[in-house]
This record gives sequence, C-alpha cells and structure tokens, in this order.
Amino acid sequence: VSDVAHGEALLTALLPAAGHALRIGISGAPGAGKSTFIEAWGELVTREGKTLAVLAIDPTSPRSGGSILGDKTRMAELARNPKAFIRATPSGASPGGVARRTREAMLLAEAAGFDIVVVETVGVGQSETTVAEMVDLFVLLVSPGSGDDLQGIKRGAMELADLVLITKADGDLAPAATRALADYRAALSLMRPKYADMPARIAKVSALAGDGMAEAWTVMAGLEAQMRASGHLKRLRMEQARRWFWSEVEAVLKEAIAAEPRIAARAVELEAAVLANRALPHASARALIRAFRGLDGRESPP
Amino acid sequence: VSDVAHGEALLTALLPAAGHALRIGISGAPGAGKSTFIEAWGELVTREGKTLAVLAIDPTSPRSGGSILGDKTRMAELARNPKAFIRATPSGASPGGVARRTREAMLLAEAAGFDIVVVETVGVGQSETTVAEMVDLFVLLVSPGSGDDLQGIKRGAMELADLVLITKADGDLAPAATRALADYRAALSLMRPKYADMPARIAKVSALAGDGMAEAWTVMAGLEAQMRASGHLKRLRMEQARRWFWSEVEAVLKEAIAAEPRIAARAVELEAAVLANRALPHASARALIRAFRGLDGRESPP
Repeated sequence: VSDVAHGEALLTALLPAAGHALRIGISGAPGAGKSTFIEAWGELVTREGKTLAVLAIDPTSPRSGGSILGDKTRMAELARNPKAFIRATPSGASPGGVARRTREAMLLAEAAGFDIVVVETVGVGQSETTVAEMVDLFVLLVSPGSGDDLQGIKRGAMELADLVLITKADGDLAPAATRALADYRAALSLMRPKYADMPARIAKVSALAGDGMAEAWTVMAGLEAQMRASGHLKRLRMEQARRWFWSEVEAVLKEAIAAEPRIAARAVELEAAVLANRALPHASARALIRAFRGLDGRESPP
Repeated sequence: VSDVAHGEALLTALLPAAGHALRIGISGAPGAGKSTFIEAWGELVTREGKTLAVLAIDPTSPRSGGSILGDKTRMAELARNPKAFIRATPSGASPGGVARRTREAMLLAEAAGFDIVVVETVGVGQSETTVAEMVDLFVLLVSPGSGDDLQGIKRGAMELADLVLITKADGDLAPAATRALADYRAALSLMRPKYADMPARIAKVSALAGDGMAEAWTVMAGLEAQMRASGHLKRLRMEQARRWFWSEVEAVLKEAIAAEPRIAARAVELEAAVLANRALPHASARALIRAFRGLDGRESPP
C-alpha cells in the first residue's frame, strides 16, 4: 500500500468525525494586519474555552518567488497557546494541490476536535476564491492605510465577503479607519447581498488596543448561528462538497492526461489547434476525450 | 453525417475568417436600460459605417421560469437597421450550452464580417462571468433608480467591468445619476484595477437625450486601442481560447458520463458518498475516472 493510499485510508476513517467546526476564511492584502488580528482574536476565543486551528495558505509570490505570508514566527503568541494550532500549507504546490491539502488539513483539524478552523490567505491569484469555497464565513481585512502606493483590495474579494473588517483603528490611523469604514460601507450598499436575508456586515477593529474585537467575534458567531438556523449552512456545505468532488474529477482527468505521454502530446496538439483558430474547442475536446478512452482510431461514438 | 457534424464542419471552415471584430459584453440588472442604450449606441456606430451584431443571452428567470430580457421587439429600431443584426440565444438550454451557442454565434457573426459583436446579458446566475470570458470589453450598465426596491448590482459584476455606465442621466433622474456616478466611482477606487495600466472607467449617459453616448463610445474604442497596443487583447484572447477548450473538455466528459447509464449511476453513487461524508472527493474522483475508462475491476493504475 502506497503512502498516498495509506494517508487516504486514514482520512476516510476520520471523515465521520469531521464537519463540526466553524470554518472561517480570513483574507486581506499583505500589510492588512491578518496575523495581528488572528493572534488577538485567537487569544479571545481560546479564553472562552474554544480550540482554534489556523491553516495558512501561503501562495508563492508571482514576483519574488518567495513566501508572501512570511515565516511561522508571525503568530508567536498564538503558536504557544495550548488551545491553538498553526500550520502553513507548503507553498510551491500547484493551486489545485494547495486547495486539496488545505481541505484535507481542515478535515484532520475537525476530526481532532478543534472548534474553529481558520483558513488564512492573501489576496493573490485565485487563493481567495479557493478559500471562500471551503469555509462557512469569509472575512475580509482591509487596512485604512492611504496614499498612492495602496492598490486597494482585489476586485472580487468584496463579492466573497460576509464580513469586512477595517483594521488598525487606533492611534494615528483612527481617523483614516473611520473614513474607510464609511467608504467600504457605501461600496457594499451598492451591491446585492450574497444571501438576501443576510447582508454583508462591516466594522472596524484594533487588534492592538483590543477595540471592537469582541464585537467582531459576536458578529461572526451571530452570522454562523443565522446560517445554521436558516439552513444556508447546510446547503452551502452540500454545494461545496459537490463542487469539490467535480473539481477533483477535473483534476484527476488532467493528471491522467498528463501522465500518459501519448495522450499528453495529443492534448497539446489539440489545444494548439484551438489557439491557432484551426479547430473548434468542442470538436477538439471530443477528440481528446476519445483519445483518453482509447477510442481514437475506432468508430466515433454517437 | 449528422447535423451536428455538418454544423461543426461549416463553423471550422469559417474559423480563419473570425476574430476580427471588437467583442463587447453589456450587462445590467433588469430595468438598467440595456436595450435603450444598445439601440441608441447601435444607431451611433452604424452611422459611422460600422456593422453591429447583438447576441442576447436570455437566461430563463429562476423565479418565474420565463424570459428575462423580454421579447425580440425590444430593439425595434435597431432590428430594422440594415447594418445591424439581433439574435437571441434560445433560453432553456443548459448554462454550458448557452455559452457554447453564443460563442459559436459570435464566430459566425465575425466570419460574416460584422465589425462589432455585442453580447448582452442580465446579471443572473453565472451569465455575467460567462459573457466576460468571451469578450474583449465588459460594460456594466447601472440605473440611478433609488428606493428600497432597488437591490443593487450583483456583487462580482464590478470585478468584471472595464467600463461602468450610469444610465438614464436625464430629466428627473439627472441628480440621482450624478450621485450614482460619484458613489460607483468611489466604490471602484477602493478596488484594484483588472489591468494595472488600465483602471476601470466610469461615466453617465442618457440614451434618450443622447448625452454622453458619443463619449462612451470614444472610451470603449479607446480602451480597445489601448488593449491592442499593450498586448492585453492578444493575451486575453489566447487565455479565453485555452479556457474555452478546457471547459469543453469538462463538458464533454460530463456529457459522456451522463450518456452511459452504468457510468452515470456510478457517478451518482460516488457523489452521494462524498456528500454523506463517507468518501474523500479525490478518491471518489479517481474511482469515477477509472470507471469512465473502463478500468474498474482491473488493477488500479499507479
């Protein structure tokens, strides 16, 4: 039995014990204050007796090739907390691989009995959408920093957010945080809510001064309770499981195509014909699936 | 030779003649003023000597089950214009089917020599993303209407827009349009642009009074020229073709699975095991692909 099969057998045995945690995605640009927030908030929830697992997806920077979230010493306090567990997804894996490993780490954390699982990510590439598709609540952190160097949040992140938190609402940045709160609230009001009966919420926090932290946690817990009561949570998780299954079917298909030189070469050839405007995507796709089934050369199926 | 094969052979023969039009997606909620805008703008561009094809994707309303865009008499003026062509995608088809038919209609319109192809849609379900993935420029129309009954634009639509147009900027609605312009401009400024060197643009128009229409067209043409010069357009179309090919591979796989009762039943069984937390998606996906290749029962591949 291979290591993979062994790991899968273990995970499968643990499946019935999973699914009981509150799953929260936390995202924000570099410098938005993610680790400071998670550390202060983690302190708060563990004091309430809850256990917390933080899974950080650390996409490799497309520019520097290096880690974006930084080393594991970021949340030094929380790392020492016996009720908390912090784990970084090894970077460098393919986006699909990162999603799979993070989902599996989430199952493990749930089976191990953690009450809350946080998946932390930075708004790079598809990572925010990936995280939003595996959690119950998606929290977007925005720093009130201003100036031309601020690129703003990624378009699309607003679409995913159930809660937007303006961070660093203290000291010199307090007035800017108040302005940012008004600006993002106005922007959110222009958009249709994800759930008609549960508009996205917005608030400001200071992890440093502790202001607004308990309130933010109350909002999160309240949103969860509302999703549970309304049936949104159950439907959301079913839908996520269904999507995960079909995205794995696609991933397995692509891996199987890539693993067989003859079929991989045929895929390259068929894709090139599409890109060169020599073939229709639908016709090329049918040819590729026929080759994959070993049906090429035989009569074409109906 | 079947009708499908015949149609495909024709389309394939026309492929080299396609790709020369400016492709514009136009979206907006029901009541945003899409047909009024397209009619007035179509008048403008055809007066310049350009030919225009309008392909309307009319998703069936999830609530009423009826057509959302309404009957074909909506753009009566433009329909009589010899330089314009209007076609509605038959509703009721699957989302994937609608995308395929619309893309093929676009190829046909291009091969027929149309200078501009517009794909019109309403912000329902995935239709906006589908359209954004087949056009060069995505234009979002927003009406300045106010009141509690206004649900706002779909979150995510802002992400897709290269140009946001506030419609109905005339008469009683003129002040509201000016406010909406400021509000949406502020919202856009909080978000990172799609292309770093090409921030999303915003303007207001009155199709009725004709105000801002020529300016809006100048902005669209300018964005296209900029995308062409910077190489964004070429890269975008290559990327769209690649995605189209792979989404067809997925669609063909799913069709082939559904077409064979034994494999379709196995897919239902494997999906159910995932939804019931009895199996891991990756393991179930591998089992399904093995069944699809007729490898189940034989020794499992590495």
